[in-house]
This record gives sequence, structure tokens and C-alpha cells, in this order.
Amino acid sequence: MPGKIRTAQTVSFDVPAGDQPGLHNRWHPDIPSIGTIKRGETVKIECLDWTGGQIGNNDSADDVRNVDLTKIHYLTGPFDIEGAEPGDLLVVNITDIQPFDHSPWGFTGIFDRKNGGGFLDRHYPRAAKAIWDFDGIYCSSRHIPGVRFAGLIHPGILGCAPSAQVLAEWNRREAELISVCAQSMPDQIVAQPPNETNAHAGKAEESLKAKIAREGARTIPGRPEHGGNVDINNISRGSTTYLPVHVPGAKFSVGDLHFSQGDGEISFCGAIEMAGIITIKFDLIKNGVKERAIPSPVFKPGDVQQLFGPSRYLTFEGFSVDESGKQHFMDATVAYRQACLRAIDYLKQFGYSGEQAYLLLSCAPIKGSIAGIVDVPNACTTLGLPMDVFDFDISVEAERVKRDLGACAVSTE
Amino acid sequence: MPGKIRTAQTVSFDVPAGDQPGLHNRWHPDIPSIGTIKRGETVKIECLDWTGGQIGNNDSADDVRNVDLTKIHYLTGPFDIEGAEPGDLLVVNITDIQPFDHSPWGFTGIFDRKNGGGFLDRHYPRAAKAIWDFDGIYCSSRHIPGVRFAGLIHPGILGCAPSAQVLAEWNRREAELISVCAQSMPDQIVAQPPNETNAHAGKAEESLKAKIAREGARTIPGRPEHGGNVDINNISRGSTTYLPVHVPGAKFSVGDLHFSQGDGEISFCGAIEMAGIITIKFDLIKNGVKERAIPSPVFKPGDVQQLFGPSRYLTFEGFSVDESGKQHFMDATVAYRQACLRAIDYLKQFGYSGEQAYLLLSCAPIKGSIAGIVDVPNACTTLGLPMDVFDFDISVEAERVKRDLGACAVSTE
Amino acid sequence: MPGKIRTAQTVSFDVPAGDQPGLHNRWHPDIPSIGTIKRGETVKIECLDWTGGQIGNNDSADDVRNVDLTKIHYLTGPFDIEGAEPGDLLVVNITDIQPFDHSPWGFTGIFDRKNGGGFLDRHYPRAAKAIWDFDGIYCSSRHIPGVRFAGLIHPGILGCAPSAQVLAEWNRREAELISVCAQSMPDQIVAQPPNETNAHAGKAEESLKAKIAREGARTIPGRPEHGGNVDINNISRGSTTYLPVHVPGAKFSVGDLHFSQGDGEISFCGAIEMAGIITIKFDLIKNGVKERAIPSPVFKPGDVQQLFGPSRYLTFEGFSVDESGKQHFMDATVAYRQACLRAIDYLKQFGYSGEQAYLLLSCAPIKGSIAGIVDVPNACTTLGLPMDVFDFDISVEAERVKRDLGACAVSTE
Amino acid sequence: MPGKIRTAQTVSFDVPAGDQPGLHNRWHPDIPSIGTIKRGETVKIECLDWTGGQIGNNDSADDVRNVDLTKIHYLTGPFDIEGAEPGDLLVVNITDIQPFDHSPWGFTGIFDRKNGGGFLDRHYPRAAKAIWDFDGIYCSSRHIPGVRFAGLIHPGILGCAPSAQVLAEWNRREAELISVCAQSMPDQIVAQPPNETNAHAGKAEESLKAKIAREGARTIPGRPEHGGNVDINNISRGSTTYLPVHVPGAKFSVGDLHFSQGDGEISFCGAIEMAGIITIKFDLIKNGVKERAIPSPVFKPGDVQQLFGPSRYLTFEGFSVDESGKQHFMDATVAYRQACLRAIDYLKQFGYSGEQAYLLLSCAPIKGSIAGIVDVPNACTTLGLPMDVFDFDISVEAERVKRDLGACAVSTE
Repeated sequence: MPGKIRTAQTVSFDVPAGDQPGLHNRWHPDIPSIGTIKRGETVKIECLDWTGGQIGNNDSADDVRNVDLTKIHYLTGPFDIEGAEPGDLLVVNITDIQPFDHSPWGFTGIFDRKNGGGFLDRHYPRAAKAIWDFDGIYCSSRHIPGVRFAGLIHPGILGCAPSAQVLAEWNRREAELISVCAQSMPDQIVAQPPNETNAHAGKAEESLKAKIAREGARTIPGRPEHGGNVDINNISRGSTTYLPVHVPGAKFSVGDLHFSQGDGEISFCGAIEMAGIITIKFDLIKNGVKERAIPSPVFKPGDVQQLFGPSRYLTFEGFSVDESGKQHFMDATVAYRQACLRAIDYLKQFGYSGEQAYLLLSCAPIKGSIAGIVDVPNACTTLGLPMDVFDFDISVEAERVKRDLGACAVSTE
Repeated sequence: MPGKIRTAQTVSFDVPAGDQPGLHNRWHPDIPSIGTIKRGETVKIECLDWTGGQIGNNDSADDVRNVDLTKIHYLTGPFDIEGAEPGDLLVVNITDIQPFDHSPWGFTGIFDRKNGGGFLDRHYPRAAKAIWDFDGIYCSSRHIPGVRFAGLIHPGILGCAPSAQVLAEWNRREAELISVCAQSMPDQIVAQPPNETNAHAGKAEESLKAKIAREGARTIPGRPEHGGNVDINNISRGSTTYLPVHVPGAKFSVGDLHFSQGDGEISFCGAIEMAGIITIKFDLIKNGVKERAIPSPVFKPGDVQQLFGPSRYLTFEGFSVDESGKQHFMDATVAYRQACLRAIDYLKQFGYSGEQAYLLLSCAPIKGSIAGIVDVPNACTTLGLPMDVFDFDISVEAERVKRDLGACAVSTE
Repeated sequence: MPGKIRTAQTVSFDVPAGDQPGLHNRWHPDIPSIGTIKRGETVKIECLDWTGGQIGNNDSADDVRNVDLTKIHYLTGPFDIEGAEPGDLLVVNITDIQPFDHSPWGFTGIFDRKNGGGFLDRHYPRAAKAIWDFDGIYCSSRHIPGVRFAGLIHPGILGCAPSAQVLAEWNRREAELISVCAQSMPDQIVAQPPNETNAHAGKAEESLKAKIAREGARTIPGRPEHGGNVDINNISRGSTTYLPVHVPGAKFSVGDLHFSQGDGEISFCGAIEMAGIITIKFDLIKNGVKERAIPSPVFKPGDVQQLFGPSRYLTFEGFSVDESGKQHFMDATVAYRQACLRAIDYLKQFGYSGEQAYLLLSCAPIKGSIAGIVDVPNACTTLGLPMDVFDFDISVEAERVKRDLGACAVSTE
Repeated sequence: MPGKIRTAQTVSFDVPAGDQPGLHNRWHPDIPSIGTIKRGETVKIECLDWTGGQIGNNDSADDVRNVDLTKIHYLTGPFDIEGAEPGDLLVVNITDIQPFDHSPWGFTGIFDRKNGGGFLDRHYPRAAKAIWDFDGIYCSSRHIPGVRFAGLIHPGILGCAPSAQVLAEWNRREAELISVCAQSMPDQIVAQPPNETNAHAGKAEESLKAKIAREGARTIPGRPEHGGNVDINNISRGSTTYLPVHVPGAKFSVGDLHFSQGDGEISFCGAIEMAGIITIKFDLIKNGVKERAIPSPVFKPGDVQQLFGPSRYLTFEGFSVDESGKQHFMDATVAYRQACLRAIDYLKQFGYSGEQAYLLLSCAPIKGSIAGIVDVPNACTTLGLPMDVFDFDISVEAERVKRDLGACAVSTE
């Protein structure tokens, strides 16, 4: 007879993340497994927030400005799934995600342009922060008054460990990009190669840890072979994700929990970042990668979501003509940036600062869609802003009254 | 007392599109207005299909292969809206769109790589075609058996005429792109400059027509100043779009009706293209561009849509690592291409050809979303495939049985 | 190759409904078939409004007060469906419903208590009327300002002819009710027995017509054996209904088209009644009544609907304690009446008259739900009022400002 | 700075419910308040299951058969809300509801016809039970295999204490019903008058307790003046209910938590009954009963719900002709019973027993709607069964294969 669901791994708020053997912050096949989960079993897995506790529930953005980006993405795992072999699909059915009762808050940050940056860092170069208080499944922020919404809680990161071969391929192609861009984009960090500083390899002993630190892929990007940091907001409660398995046991890890996030997570630290507990039911489809033609992750969202009427999304169009009037060729990234900038300018009319609006678009349940991707030279994207998250009328027809909407924390220079 | 809604402009199936004075196929401020519509008035506007009738309801793709792309996007208009002045917002509330009773069909095409191309033309270089039969608000195709869905009918193109200044800016920046890319992307048509061949300037007399042909912007791309060919599928029945006005009277035009289209319209001729009748209620917000901070089009979708449960979308992840394994930097376009290719490979397991699947993703109500746009170096996008449009089970768990799913038309070499 | 959909039956606005051979207004197995439809065929069927044109597009409710209720429910049909036999299920897939282009309006009426009555006739005994103008898929009324909504267009009535045996059973049980209630409810018309006056039997010759007039069941109630006047608003575009077949050929009839209707159609003439064209695709499931266990109609709604967010329904609770404070035992009908009365009182605060609010609840897309049906002695029902159909704020929190909301037509004594 | 949400009242699984001073099971103005909650405050309130622990997580239905119905509806409260006065509206915003971590299960029961009964007790006279195991927000049952769904968790009961006057009115009108029905319905318990046996008045001292036991209204029915046992499933997370206040401090109580429930809760113990923790944010609208015209509870559902596509509801029609063929006059209760019976017969084809299907319709997210309530003599109702909760195909078209679907617990005679 089923009883209380077991917790496969706990985390501590009192011990530094880098000292907790159940966590790691690099992708590598050799990080030691911290436990085994059966096929068909449901377990709870505790996770720290992605910075491992670097950001405080206060009104200063200096912690965001000074964040140490070598010490991020502390994932819980890896877990062996009984019977998993390379070529299988790991079936990850998330049945719940909750913040810790004792820690009902999260944060959204804009990173300093010189330390992390983000999608709009040329426009908003200074660090900023908003703290969100959770009231059940809803949240609100003293730093962004006037909004309240339910969280579509999800993990930013979930994936199986790469095999040695897959890891080598990641390192090869990202190194190539770095090399190619060194001249063309000298001021831009285009990818993060392995970095030994603050690498955390779980309970690996020293020599293994050194190897992992040397070779282990950074967790920042999602990658097609395993998913990873995909930041997909509807991989939430009820969703089922099919993940390719690359190593015996699968070595599944999860972390970077988000209380809510808009499509794109545009400010980089843009979700409502939180620590919490994720409940997952695991299963396997044997040989599924080949027999189901699923070389990259595939998922079905859950059937429980926040539901606004379609006509309640005020939707901004963005094209691949940049802020300076320069025409780009079919660049959906530039196009989405324009939609974001349009929406921020729109929100400023009601009294929000640019930083407040930028933070809000990062973490509220906005929709980012690809509209047209074939009409040379302009990609067209849309950003849908749900008007029902505001407690005042933001429609086009609404009277323009500048409200006192306070301020988010913005870092000193 | 309101009565029958007046038809502001008819079209003919018997006269060549280029000879109909109520149509035009370039953007230019001087194209003569074909009528005046009052503020608050609802009118019906008839439209030809975007090719002006070049494609037939038959089983050959040769008409698609041979399509004359100088003779496309025959728009109905321009209409003066009473009282509209530069700086206003034209409020376009679409209250209905219907195919013609006598023409209950549409087409989806893949262009030949050498004549038009498309998002996946390296993979599917030959022209292909599917004909769709409309059964009320639903459609099905003899060329793509196994699917049936309701159309979220919409115009691919709607916009106000550019001013001379806006037009000059378009021509400047697109010429610059052409110039810049001439060396770096010699095989790629990156933009279409003005082209006198087959330019249609409505009822302009000869010398004006020659000027318009010389200067008039092509209709292929959407553009941030006015919208145009945005191919946004939820600008459908019930939607309200706010369009910047650039010339006195607004000079609104509309066309390129789509019975249905997936996000991205990936095969370029990828919607279910049709002729039909659009019903629009017009209004103005005076000085809205500045006073409402809306320099680019903004819209609210309608409240009537096709509604599948969120868990019924089988969703494919795509990252900016291309088909050859090359890492691109934060390129959402490359990322979306990968999601499309993954979905096509998936559908091929059930018996569809690559072309059939490509056509289907272009025109069925698929969702294309931006997931992550800040995690260097990988943009992450998702493509959601609604499983309920199929009359067989395409879930990951479904048994793989190759069905006889016929064939779409594919052109001879 | 499919072409234009054929019209299986037209109607005329110029000939009295009772003289049109393609219509009938009684249920009887012997009404002659007016045509044959193939399995798998889609056809258009034209329908008059349910009163056969008795109500005018004007500002007087006297036509509603004087309506002749022996001359109602002119149905189009019956049609033979090729191959249909008793015991089969007729599969009715509605693929479209439209008003006539030349008649873009409808009406909602409150019947006089002495001629028809309605759910709240003790409270609103006089006849009233609102005219609705259609603007594409949306409607609004000069008699009920402040609201605009899309119609979930549907037929109030669809069903197959009863067999002689089924008809006899209807007449038996309804006569029994009339007899039983004669003493207990002397002032209430509890059912309508066959009535020869103005009976219309389609193209039946005289002696057959006389028989049908004598025996034919009235069309007012829905009945479990065949459906009939079910007034279910989500049997709309895209819906599929499975109807038991009782006679060879099925003898399917349809009519009483509604542009929109709330759950309950509480004012009896409470939908937005219209003439129009319904498009239906027919099929059969042989022996389905028994083999699929479907003795009464079953349906699947369409996947295209008006979608408001769930939190946008202001929802009123109603219990089976009546207006006078009398406790009824588990009476959901009394309970729903209370919910309606509560909602009407609520709307009156904003400036509507009781009749306007009553008409609006009858025809707008309100939700009527059964909440609790087991907690003695109170049934509990709810009425959900979609706040987004109003162009002003009707929330509980909204400021109470009495607007000038005009007036609907109300009959003279 | 907000911190952990305080728990306003705990419950114990180890102490009999009737001995816990924070609980009560009658409605009476004099039950002592157990605490005060501020306006704008969010608190957690723990609740026992409605039977106070009488039902076990086992495979016998004998505990259901023997349930003591004088010992039910142990509500947590009453709480004073600071500043509440008669005539105010208490604003109850539910921000979360969770089962206890240590008790992740619930039960659905059919009561014995001689002890409690239910909507279909003539058809299913014996007690039956299904145990549901919670897996995050989803549940499944070893007693009803083949289904799994998310819970729209809600409290069956919430309300403010009646004033002495309101209580007197309840007792008067229900006594009158009992008196009137004594002859006409001798075998039916039509209402439950005050009953001293096992009355629990919280921390009231003896003489007060005796008074409350003597006068206190039973909690079984919902009542229009305050809500109470309304069993409305979308008063769930995110909902806001506006409750009339009748006594100083409001004296709010809550309980009878349901993990999931279909419209109607047809088997009486028909929800998935559970113990758990509800999180509520309280506010007041002063004088709202009169100034907002809200004499009975009104609510807005939350914006987070389970979302199936509308076309995924297999919908059964029910009319007011009863199982024996007797015609009832406009009786929506009889009509809904028919819809339920049709759905049960339908489900039996796939291998469920009648009791399993009855339990399932009681607790799964089915929709019960009022379709037509004015077409004499037949009320028409519909029951929508969401096909996506089943892990096999239950569509009309699905092949009829009798599965081995186990059995629920059914009591011995």
C-alpha cells in the first residue's frame, strides 16, 4: 500500500552548496551517483536555488551585481535509474514542485553587463533585483507593485549525464565557436568553456574531482543531446519529458527551480528563482532514442496551467530590424529583443521603471512566439503580455495615469 | 437600423489579378485609394489568394515550382479611413473571415529551392503541394491523410501604407543588407529590393505606376513600422490590431488570407492559402502612436480559438546547434529549424514523407515558442504539435505502425 | 475532387413557413422525407428562425406578446440518411453554422406570462424583446448596451423521427403528467399534448397531414429517446452528436438556430434566435444504440469555442430555497432559479432593468452548473457570468455607478 | 518582510475529532471563536477529513457502511476576522490547499441506502469505497484502475456563522419541509433537524455546548445565507469567494477538503475526501451585502485549472423522464440522474462495475450543466466525461473490449 513519498535527496541551507555531496555544478559522466531510483517510483528531490544561496531577501541589488558565476547551477543528483542504459528514454513525469515551507520567497535579477549580462544588457547595464513573496501558488513583489500571478513552477534544468563522447562533442563545438568569434565579437562571451574554479563534482574524491573540473561542461546552456538548462516554463507539474540516456543508469540531475518564468527568461537571472522540492515519477522506454526517433528531449506539458483568455494577451510584434535601425537577416533573436523593448516602453507609461518592466517580462507568464521565419529579411516574433496579472488596466484603451509603482533594487555603479 | 454589411471591394476570379484596379502588390504611399471607410464602420473586403490564382486544385506541384514570385501578394486596397492622420493608430477589429462559398479549398506549398525556397530548403529542395478541402470551419487534404482540424483563419498581411520617409528607410536598410551579404552569403537571397516586373499599383495611371514600380517596397517581409506580412495566426476572428498610420487616410490594405497556419509558416508558402472575404470593423485612436507608445503594431487575439488541452501538445525542443553539429551563437532561427527537423523525423515514423510532414508543420495549428534566449551559446525553442489533429495516436507511447498515408504532390526536377 | 457543398434544402423568407413543403413543426414517423443524404456526405441545410418569421427587427415587444405558439419550431427535414435503420446511431458532425448574409440579426424574447411564460415569469410577467445585430461572429444589441460577445452558434433542435411506438410512449407519459397535475398545478401548463391547430407536416397530403396533426408530438421539449429541442449551446461548430435512429432512413430534422444562448435558455425565447444555414457531415454507426450503449443522445463539443479565463466568471450560487423562503427538497430547478435572480439583482446595480438582465442571462454565454445534488435538503447550482462580455467593469470590487443603459422593448399590458 | 505563513489552527490525527477544541460540527452563532485573523492576512488552517477519521486506507467498505453520520463535518474554526461586522462581505481568497505530507491519500464512498444514501441509491444500495493515492497533484486508485487525473482541490464547506435570526429561519423552514413531507415521502430523510448526539461545539463549556447541540444547524446542506456545504469544485486554489457576514467577527469556518470532485458529488461521500491544509488570504468589503447586492455567496474561480480540450468531453444528455419512464415536470434533479445513469451504463462496457463507475463520476472532474430549463415538461441537463483521464480510449468509436478493471470495495449485506 503506497505511503508517504520518499525523499531521495535533501539539501541544507546551512552548509555551503559546494560542500554538499548531493549537489554538483558541472556535466560529466563520472560524477558519482548519489542514489538509485526504481522504474515506476516517485521520489521527492530537494534543490537549492541556482546560485546556491548567494542572493538575499533584501532590498539591495549588490549581491546580484557581485554574484559569482562559477558557483551556480547546483544541481541535485546524479541519480541512477534502475535498468537505464544508453539509448533508452528516461520518462520524467513531474507530479509536483513546491517551495520550502520555511522559505516562501524567490528572486529575479538583472545581471550587471560586466558580470553575466542578459538579453537587454546594452539598455539596462546595471544589476537589479526584485524579491517575490509566495502566497500559496500566487506571488507578488514589494519591488514591482501592481502585479500578482500564479506560478507555473518548473525546473530550469533537467537532464541525464552526457557520455564521454557526447561531452567531448560539446567541448569541441563550443570551443570552435569561441575561437571563431574571438575576432568578430571580442567583447562578447559567446560560450563558457570548462572552468575549474569552484567546480563541484558531488562526492567525487580529489583526483576524480580534478578531472571533472577540467573536463566538465558548464551548465549554462541547454544542449540538444540531453536538454539541461532549457528554461521551458511548461515543463511544470503534470508534464512528462522524454530524455535520451547516454550512460548506464542515466545519471539524472535536476535543479534551478523557478516559481515562474516568461518565455525567454530574458534577464538571464530572469525567472523567480527559488529553492524547493520537486516530486518526480520515473520510468523508461527501452531503446526509445532510436525506436521512437527522439534524439533530443521531447515533452508533453501538464494539463493544469494558468488560463487567461486569449484576448487578454496584449501582444507586441518584433522584427529583425534592431534598435539602431539596422536590418538583420531572418534573426529571430533580434526580433524577439525588439518585441521585449516595445513591451518595456509600453509598461513605462504606467509608472514602471525600465528595470521593473524588464524584470517583470522575465518572470511573469508572458508568451514568446515565433510568428514568421521565412519572409526575407525579417523574422517576426510576438510577445504576449497577460493583462490579467495587473491590478490596474493596461489595455491600449486605458487612460494613461502614471502610478507610484515604487522601485526595484538597482545596484550602485 | 443596421442591415447587411456592405462590401467595400470585390475581386474577380476571371480577370487577371494584375488587371484588377482594386488590388496592388507593392507598398507605396502613392497607390491611389480605392474607397473610404468611416470610423466605426464594418465592411467586407474580398481578397484573392496570395498568388493571384497561379496555383490549381490538382495533383501536380509544377505550378508551385514555376510560381512567378514577382506576381504575388495581391492585396486589396488601399482604403482611406475617414479622419486618419499620421501618428494615429488604426484599430482593426476582424469580425469574420470566410472562404468564398464557390471556392472551398486552399493550398500549401513547398517552393523549389531555386525559386522561393523556404525554411528547410536544404533538406527539401523540390517543390511540393497539398490541396486542402474545407468542410465548414474544418479542413482535410487528400495529400496528407490522417489529419483534420479547424482553421484559425487570418490574413497574412495587413497594414497601412508607408510614408515616403518610411519607404525610403525600408529601401535604405534592406539595400544595405543586400550589399553587406553579397560577399558573405552569395547564394542566398537576403532581401528583395524594388522590382518593376509585374508591379501592380492598383488604378494608378501610367506615370505614377512607373514610379511606384520603381520605388515600391516588396510585400514579402513584415516590417516594424506598419506590420505588413506578419503571418501571425492569431490575428484571426475577434482580434483587434492597432496599426500605426503614416499617411493621411491611413491607406489600409489587406490580403494573403490563410485558412490555417502554424507558427513560423515554415515552408514559405506554408499556410493553407485561400481566397476569401474578410469582415473588419475600423476605428481610430488619435495620436495613439505617441500617446499610447505603440510605434509598431500591437494586437489582442480574439477570444474564439481552437482549444486543445496543454498536455495534448507533443513538444519538440530545438537548440542553436545546426544539422551539421555546428554551434551557433544564440540563434533562435537555427534553434527553431532544429525543432522542426526533429518533428518531421518523428512524423516520418508513422508513414508520412518528409514533404508531407514539412507541409503539415507549416499549416497545422502548431505552436512555436521561444524558451530560452539568454543561456550562451544556445537559444532554445520549442515546437508543439497538437496530437488531436491526427486521427491516429502519435504519442511517444503509441505503437509504431507505418500507415499508408499516400503522398503529396512533388515536382519533377 | 470535392467542390462546392450542396444545399440539401432551401427556405424562403417570402412564403409563409406553414406553406413550405421542406418544413414541419411536429414529430411523427410519417412526415414524408424531403431528400436523401449519403453516408459521409456534407450538406448545407437552410432553416428559418423558430417562429417562422413572426418576430420583427423593430423596437416593439408586441409581436413577442402576441406570438402564436402553435406556429413554432419550423424544422427543416426530415431527411433520409442512406442506409440508416432502427438501432443505428446517426453521427451528426456540424461543420459550420451561419446566419444568412441578407439577414444579419436575431432576437431574444421574454414571453408574456399568459402566452408562453418562462423561467422567471412570476417576476417578469410582461413580454420583452431585444434585437441583436451580428458583426461577423460577434453581436451587440441596441436594447442592451454595454455588451458584445461572440456567438457559439448552434441548433436548438436536432433529432431523428420517433417510431410509432416511441411516439405513443411520449404521448402516453405526457398525457399522464397533464392528468396528474390537473389538480395540483391547475394554473400551470405542464406539457403540450398534440394539437391540430397549425400543425405542419411538410409535403404530406391531406389525410396523412390530418393524422400527423392529430398524433404528432409537439416539438417544445427535448426527449430522451431522440434529443429534439435540447437547447445545448455547445452542440456548435465542430461538435459530433450521436443520435439513436428509430425509423428506416432516420428521418433527421434540424432547426431553431441560435446565434448564442446561455445555459438554461431561461426566458424560453431566450437564445438569440435567428434564421441561417447549418452545414452537417453525416455518418452512421450501425447497431450503435445497443452495441455502444447509447439509448439517448451523446455528443462531443467542438474544439473551437469562446475562451474566457476561469477567473473571469463571476459566479452566483443558488439553492433550493425559493424566493418566498420556502424550503424545497433537492430541487435543482428551484436552485438554478435563485442563482438567476441573484445575478439579475446584481446587474441591476449597474443600470440594467430587470428585463434587460433577464434577456442577457438567457442569451449570453453564461455557465449553469450543478454543484451539489446530494446534500439534503438543498440542491446547489451555480451561474457563471463572463465579465469579459461587458465593456465596463462588473466585478464585485468595481465602483457602483448607474449607467444609462437604455431599455429593451417591453410590451404594453 | 513577509516570512513563513502562520498556521492559525492545527489538527491532530491522534485525538478524536470530537475532543479537539479547534473543531466543531454544527452551525451556531455561539460557538466560541478559536482565534483572530487580520484583514489582509494569509494563514494556514489544518482540517481533518469530513468524517473525522472514520474511514481507513484499506480494502473494505464496511467502515463506509457503518459510518456514524452524527459525527461528520468537523470544521476548523470559527475564526474571528478583525473588523468584520454583520452586513460586510468576507473576502476569502484561497491561495493553496494541500494534503498532509504524511497522509497522501483520500477516499470516495457510496453510502449504504439505509445509512446516508446518495443520488443513485435505488440502483446502488450497498456501501462501496475507493481509496485514492496522491502522487503530487495527481491521483490514482487501486480500486478503479485505468484513470489518473489532477485534483482541483477545494473545501466542500466554507462559511460564516449564522446569526441567531438566520439560524432560527433555517430551523423553521427545514422543520416545515420535514413536516410537509412526512406523509408524502415517508421513506425519505428530507432534511436533518438539530441533533444533540455527538454535537461538537469546539471549546464551548458544558451549558453552552448543550445549547448549541440543541439548536445548532446540521452542516449537511449548503444554505443561501452563508454558503456552507456547497461542494463547488472550482472554489479551488486562486478562487475568491465573497461571503455574507452575519455576526460580529464573521466567525468563519472551513473543512471537508476534497482532492477532487465531479459536479454534483453524486454519491454523497463522492469527492476524494481528505485531510489537509488550506491557505487563505482574508479581506473584507464593508457593508458589501447591501452595497454590492450580494445576499448569497458569489465567487470567482481561480485562473489555474485542469484544462482538457472541449472536444475531449464525452457528454451525456439527461431529461426529466425517470428510470421507470415516468414524466416529471421540469425537474433538473431527475434529469441529471438520468445523465449519470447513462454515463455509468456506458462505462460498464469497458469493464467497470456499476459501483466503480458511480464512484468515478462522483470524484473525477466531470462537468454537470443545465442545458434547458424552460421547455415543458422536460428539463435537460448534460454530464461531460473527460476522456483524457482514462489511459485507454473510451470514445464512441473505440472498440469495445472488456478490460480487467479489478473491483472497488463493496460492503457485505
